[in-house]
Amino acid sequence: MAITSFNPPKRTLLGPGPSDVPQRVLDAMARPTIGHLDPQFVIMMDEVKELLRYLFQTKNDITMAVSGPGMAGMEMCVVNLVEPGDKVIVCRNGVFGGRMISNVERCGGTAIVIDDEWGKPADLQKVEEAFKVHPDAKVLGFVHAETSTGVRSDAEALVKLAHQYGALTIVDAVTSLGGIPVLVDEWGIDAIYSGSQKCLSCTPGLSPVSFGPRAVEAIKNRKTQVQSWFLDLTLVMDYWGSGAKRAYHHTAPINSLYGLHESLVMIQEEGIENSWKRHHENHLKLKDALEPLGLNFFVDEAYRLPQLNAMVIPEGVNDGQVRSRLLQDYSLEIGGGLGPGAGKLWRIGLMGHSSRQENIDLVSKALQEVLSDIKVG
Amino acid sequence: MAITSFNPPKRTLLGPGPSDVPQRVLDAMARPTIGHLDPQFVIMMDEVKELLRYLFQTKNDITMAVSGPGMAGMEMCVVNLVEPGDKVIVCRNGVFGGRMISNVERCGGTAIVIDDEWGKPADLQKVEEAFKVHPDAKVLGFVHAETSTGVRSDAEALVKLAHQYGALTIVDAVTSLGGIPVLVDEWGIDAIYSGSQKCLSCTPGLSPVSFGPRAVEAIKNRKTQVQSWFLDLTLVMDYWGSGAKRAYHHTAPINSLYGLHESLVMIQEEGIENSWKRHHENHLKLKDALEPLGLNFFVDEAYRLPQLNAMVIPEGVNDGQVRSRLLQDYSLEIGGGLGPGAGKLWRIGLMGHSSRQENIDLVSKALQEVLSDIKVG
Repeated sequence: MAITSFNPPKRTLLGPGPSDVPQRVLDAMARPTIGHLDPQFVIMMDEVKELLRYLFQTKNDITMAVSGPGMAGMEMCVVNLVEPGDKVIVCRNGVFGGRMISNVERCGGTAIVIDDEWGKPADLQKVEEAFKVHPDAKVLGFVHAETSTGVRSDAEALVKLAHQYGALTIVDAVTSLGGIPVLVDEWGIDAIYSGSQKCLSCTPGLSPVSFGPRAVEAIKNRKTQVQSWFLDLTLVMDYWGSGAKRAYHHTAPINSLYGLHESLVMIQEEGIENSWKRHHENHLKLKDALEPLGLNFFVDEAYRLPQLNAMVIPEGVNDGQVRSRLLQDYSLEIGGGLGPGAGKLWRIGLMGHSSRQENIDLVSKALQEVLSDIKVG
Repeated sequence: MAITSFNPPKRTLLGPGPSDVPQRVLDAMARPTIGHLDPQFVIMMDEVKELLRYLFQTKNDITMAVSGPGMAGMEMCVVNLVEPGDKVIVCRNGVFGGRMISNVERCGGTAIVIDDEWGKPADLQKVEEAFKVHPDAKVLGFVHAETSTGVRSDAEALVKLAHQYGALTIVDAVTSLGGIPVLVDEWGIDAIYSGSQKCLSCTPGLSPVSFGPRAVEAIKNRKTQVQSWFLDLTLVMDYWGSGAKRAYHHTAPINSLYGLHESLVMIQEEGIENSWKRHHENHLKLKDALEPLGLNFFVDEAYRLPQLNAMVIPEGVNDGQVRSRLLQDYSLEIGGGLGPGAGKLWRIGLMGHSSRQENIDLVSKALQEVLSDIKVG
């Protein structure tokens, strides 16, 4: 055998995530491990909750980080809110809506699927029609920022609509949190999940979540047990509870939480509004740099995500060839397309710490050189 | 707000986990994050699989690390192998068997519970009687090394018995892997899960698992969909598959896997047999150091775990007071009891990197001083 230590190359990460992780966050992860019941660690967990409340712009008590990636966060929201027989309206305009449908069905729920074209946002009118046909729908689930296409749906309006019909909302904010406004309390979002490795600039593996009072009430009124022990919110919350109420559930990923804590402190230092502003401004700069190269946006300006730029691959250009060259010659990662977008789209993330002038310069220079090489060649 | 960076104290971790994490592993975690689809990362994932096969002493193709703590590994084993209506015999002689029962029931399975006294191993005769009454039981689940009591059950004999009755086996090896022999192929274990933060000396948050051919066959023959999307083995394995077969499922916890990789390289360097030997020898040294202080083992010598030493708290000694003193004055963590053991047991872990002479010296000196202080005081 004789496998030796792994020394990863230094990359610039401008794909759909993970994004570049600042040295401060990496350094935090390397601090000495302490016990997960250590009083000092409990203080840190409380601070993570407090910082996540700031990120989510919420006062929700039940705000914390699931000990798993964003997909575990999605599953936590679904398994706690959906019981067998429940109707859930799910908007699908990309890969992640499709995953929510699968989650709902695996809980024994009935998914009422609202399909929208990839590259378009969730259609409010179709959602309203679905509510009219299914006024008993318990939950509306949708993806705020669709990572597979770079589309922003109107979360505020969708939540408002769901509430008019007495439904709860589950919002996928994996790619939106930290990059564009996510106003949990102002919009009235009931359950929301995100990921650590996008606009939060932390390493992957943790999923911030928040549950509002209506969601908590629904969980209290469940008729059946939550099908997942690991993701049962009542058990997990006892673990994240403060002080004496704290009950052992699992062993928290100590050092990953050090990293998340540090990345949240950094966003607090910058100010969340400034983070949104930086993502927006750098998006415009990227636009100004890429459009002259003949690269066009896949998504209409009105619902384009500043942090995830889906660009149409020019006719005759080989996706794999370009991305391999970027990786090999520039140590630069951009994302390919997912599903129907495979081979047709590049996804250029300017998320969190990756959203910087030097990265815009690098990716536009590298693409210019590689594309002109290919045309010449 | 103004929450600042978290600087954890330096502890010596001699509790039930996490154990001390070597600087090499911490340094590995702080290496630059790369993409989870980066060719270099895929090579590293393949190496992690290879190293885990060595740890588990198996050739099982399906051997990898779940992107969540040990409890996620338990749930992965149960949700993939247990379908509604399936009978599962579960041995409970501590906290973790109880959790397996809950997992089985949440899958719609029927748990046939074999209770044994806390501090005793799973009773083979009772298990055989259960199989006689329930010859249609599909699975036998048990905990190899019960973290709540420090007891080793006879995994080899239990697996043999289950196979005589045509049942599969799910083995909890969270605390055993790396500390005592876990011979997956030789014993014929069908599904097994562990945790990164015990005898592997990595930080918490990952759960090594391995599935043998009979388990894979059972999963292929399922009549129902696995109820968890995040833990659906078929989907997860496509993600951990080699080369072109690799399909996106979730974003792996990149830097945590750097840490696991490094900790596995370190065990490979030491040699797994030497690791078992070190745990055994240091256990005997701890025994020689603690018994003269009037501290007695809770568990009979025949099935005592070398890596987790449950000691009876002497009459009249206040558990919380002693552990607080150890933490404050010696920055030393030992574990309290769980469940019925609370206030009655100390759990002293000598797991992985924590299993060292200097730690035996520290804990025995510290306990001697604190206990004699209390007697004087």
